[in-house]
Amino acid sequence: MILDRIRMEKLREKVMTADEAALFIKDGMTLATSGFTPSGYPKAVPLALAKRAENGEEIGVTLITGASVGDELDGALSRAGVLKRRFPYQTNNDSRNGINAGTVAYQDMHLSHVPQFIEYGFFGNIDIAIIEALAITEEGNIIPTTSVGISPQAVAEADIVIVEINTSQSMALEGVHDIYMTKKPPFREPIPITHSGDRIGTPYITCDPEKIVAIVECDIADKVRPLGAIDEDSKKISQHIIKFLEAEVAAKRLPKNLLPLQSGVGSVANAVLGGLVESDFDNLTCYTEVIQDSMFDLIDAGKVTIASGTSFTPSEEGLIRLNENMEHYAKHCILRPMEISNHPEVARRLGVIAMNTAIEFDIYGHVNSTNIMGSRMMNGLGGSGDFTRNAYLSFFTTVSTAKNGDISSIVPFVSHVDHTEHDVEVFVTEQGLADVRGLCPTERARAIIENCAHPNYKEMLLDYLNRAETGKFSHEPHLMDESHSWHDRFLKTGSMKK
Amino acid sequence: MILDRIRMEKLREKVMTADEAALFIKDGMTLATSGFTPSGYPKAVPLALAKRAENGEEIGVTLITGASVGDELDGALSRAGVLKRRFPYQTNNDSRNGINAGTVAYQDMHLSHVPQFIEYGFFGNIDIAIIEALAITEEGNIIPTTSVGISPQAVAEADIVIVEINTSQSMALEGVHDIYMTKKPPFREPIPITHSGDRIGTPYITCDPEKIVAIVECDIADKVRPLGAIDEDSKKISQHIIKFLEAEVAAKRLPKNLLPLQSGVGSVANAVLGGLVESDFDNLTCYTEVIQDSMFDLIDAGKVTIASGTSFTPSEEGLIRLNENMEHYAKHCILRPMEISNHPEVARRLGVIAMNTAIEFDIYGHVNSTNIMGSRMMNGLGGSGDFTRNAYLSFFTTVSTAKNGDISSIVPFVSHVDHTEHDVEVFVTEQGLADVRGLCPTERARAIIENCAHPNYKEMLLDYLNRAETGKFSHEPHLMDESHSWHDRFLKTGSMKK
Repeated sequence: MILDRIRMEKLREKVMTADEAALFIKDGMTLATSGFTPSGYPKAVPLALAKRAENGEEIGVTLITGASVGDELDGALSRAGVLKRRFPYQTNNDSRNGINAGTVAYQDMHLSHVPQFIEYGFFGNIDIAIIEALAITEEGNIIPTTSVGISPQAVAEADIVIVEINTSQSMALEGVHDIYMTKKPPFREPIPITHSGDRIGTPYITCDPEKIVAIVECDIADKVRPLGAIDEDSKKISQHIIKFLEAEVAAKRLPKNLLPLQSGVGSVANAVLGGLVESDFDNLTCYTEVIQDSMFDLIDAGKVTIASGTSFTPSEEGLIRLNENMEHYAKHCILRPMEISNHPEVARRLGVIAMNTAIEFDIYGHVNSTNIMGSRMMNGLGGSGDFTRNAYLSFFTTVSTAKNGDISSIVPFVSHVDHTEHDVEVFVTEQGLADVRGLCPTERARAIIENCAHPNYKEMLLDYLNRAETGKFSHEPHLMDESHSWHDRFLKTGSMKK
Repeated sequence: MILDRIRMEKLREKVMTADEAALFIKDGMTLATSGFTPSGYPKAVPLALAKRAENGEEIGVTLITGASVGDELDGALSRAGVLKRRFPYQTNNDSRNGINAGTVAYQDMHLSHVPQFIEYGFFGNIDIAIIEALAITEEGNIIPTTSVGISPQAVAEADIVIVEINTSQSMALEGVHDIYMTKKPPFREPIPITHSGDRIGTPYITCDPEKIVAIVECDIADKVRPLGAIDEDSKKISQHIIKFLEAEVAAKRLPKNLLPLQSGVGSVANAVLGGLVESDFDNLTCYTEVIQDSMFDLIDAGKVTIASGTSFTPSEEGLIRLNENMEHYAKHCILRPMEISNHPEVARRLGVIAMNTAIEFDIYGHVNSTNIMGSRMMNGLGGSGDFTRNAYLSFFTTVSTAKNGDISSIVPFVSHVDHTEHDVEVFVTEQGLADVRGLCPTERARAIIENCAHPNYKEMLLDYLNRAETGKFSHEPHLMDESHSWHDRFLKTGSMKK
């Protein structure tokens, strides 16, 4: 079966076991792999690599991927102690534990920066690219599977390429990809996308077949993650956003079919997008990173005509639905390299409506997307900065409290800043929505406290603001001896409440 | 003389005094004006407006400009109490005092966002555009003077237009401008710039002559500001950067003639760029906001072939030099709308080398560009975010201490975040340079402390880092009860020293 998928005959002699292929990997190497969310990442070769370490070999690597990947890569390499340095995003329990323990050196990056950093040489030499593929074409080019991520740049820049052909992936995926690469400055040209559905590239990743040193068969399915049930808070957040968008259309600040939607990864983001199924909007398009379950609902409801992303990121049920109806969904979906899905140039040109989730935001509108209580890495930034900064309109959402009410998601000064007051127009919690366009910081603070904060914390927030305003400087007043006192109190007492 | 500059005959009947023209402005209006740095801003009409308030009239306005402007606009309107709301940047003492006193509502914005916010209607209705012009063409179009800023969008979106023809501005400026406007999404197309010197528009701002309600003569020169003498610290910073760039060329990570340079506004930025005169680099180009004195040196030295910006921002001597040699400099300079000079799309495509100045940065690489000790607005963000995020390489520079050593410019946690750890690759002080590419936060902290901090503060910074690392989470460890203690100590004792 695997030989059918290797259409260039002379490459068939490169087929070998995962154990054999993993021997190309040496201690200290930098690996760049396919994968974006637990979709389309290599599985067999990383498992074989982890086994070598478990058998006592001293081996450590730097790993660069598109975004998070499945347990066979991040998890297995972390548990085996092979993962020493990691870029640019992760969601795996074991890699997260390593990062927070200081045993994995992690740099959390804007996803759109990663492909060009590979090409610029800013990560150093890329020793091996490991790419999950649907098939290899007659010319030796690589057809990706359920995600694209950094694969084109990994293949172009790595010294050698290992291909995992995954037979669990549906051949109906062929044709869904649109692979386009930019040149390096000073030779870079405009990216010719003016609509979410524009196809500008090839359905495969161009690869010099001489670079392919190993081809491995794999039949392990993507380790997709369950999506949380859509709860009442998420529904309320979604309703606040839809009501706001309707008002923007009525005020003629948005077209009737809106502008291309971008929505972050995860359950709340999935729910926010899902709310549109019940709305009056139609002829919608999406220009985003991940295509989650609610996108399939929107396509089936005839609400979304085209969804552009860099990965399919379904739940377990979503994966079955996708595989059973791949030809149907492939007509409405495009998978692009993450350099293009997340590119500031395209996001700003199309005027995306960006909807991303925060860990916390502060009264002046700075957003923490990554570090709980300042120091504890959750997942990472992902593409939120790429979209937020370049959006037509940018929303950040969060539930107003966490930990049974002991944490307020709205605080005086966030404990880590990933997006600044200059980047976001609308803040939303289940409590309500604050449109801060045109407001100065103190007006913004009152709008956010009034509309977004949980009633249990409103008075405390207003008290901070009022006391800060009695100081000498009233533009964006803070109390430097209290700015992080809420976080400090939580760490010491288990609650932000006084 | 002014009639010669109004080439459309029927518009000559619109000539009136500044006092008459100022009567178009009513209480509560929103004004969008020309001007970027103290260059090319309207002068006579704002002075006439201020006079009305000084004579007892109750009048307040919202003012949107390109960036900072001269005293006749920001200063006069602030002192007269006319300035109620201000976007997106300022440097005037009186407007700054109003902002910090809370009497002027100020929103500090990414400059590249402003033109599209005008078009999107996010500022509400634009009642009047007031534009300083060199001349009006036969068709009624407006030729700008020493800056472009937001003028094209102001003219397009305002209900009516007042033109100030400034006879102090050299007619040799005609032809230096390149005016190109983007369409609003979903109709926006690629901006066809692939080199700093590309001309893609018209040498004038298109204007419906019916919208011009008044033309006023003015002969007040731009209130340019002196540039500080190039001091030893600035020289050292410049030398660190040049040495680093030479090494990047040697490592083949940059072309021999580098990539288009962007440099912030002010004395340090001017000095950094000026240092290149003595370097071995040539055939340089610049894609930046402001063209300051050192650019003239670089052009005269044959180092810079083309400089693209949105304003000439010379010192007093620089202005004389510019005016006396306008035809010479005009061959090497292009003034664009700030939407284009600061556009993420173009900055990233060209791969600019961004060099901006910080108030402070922290051990993990977050940058404060705007608020001293958290609450006191200095000037604003300007275009630093537009360039930094989209650069090929982004530098932030600062002198390692301020206030005779009582303030360390490197702190545990900045008191305001304008640029995050995800945005900057290289930090520079007079002490040295920290290249943080590929480093995790704790590695970054050690590199910044070791290379950039003043010796008087190194031990204190290391002590903070070491104690923070003993906590439970070691990725980007902070002490929430000490994160802003350095700022608090300075506010209470006058020194960050213990």
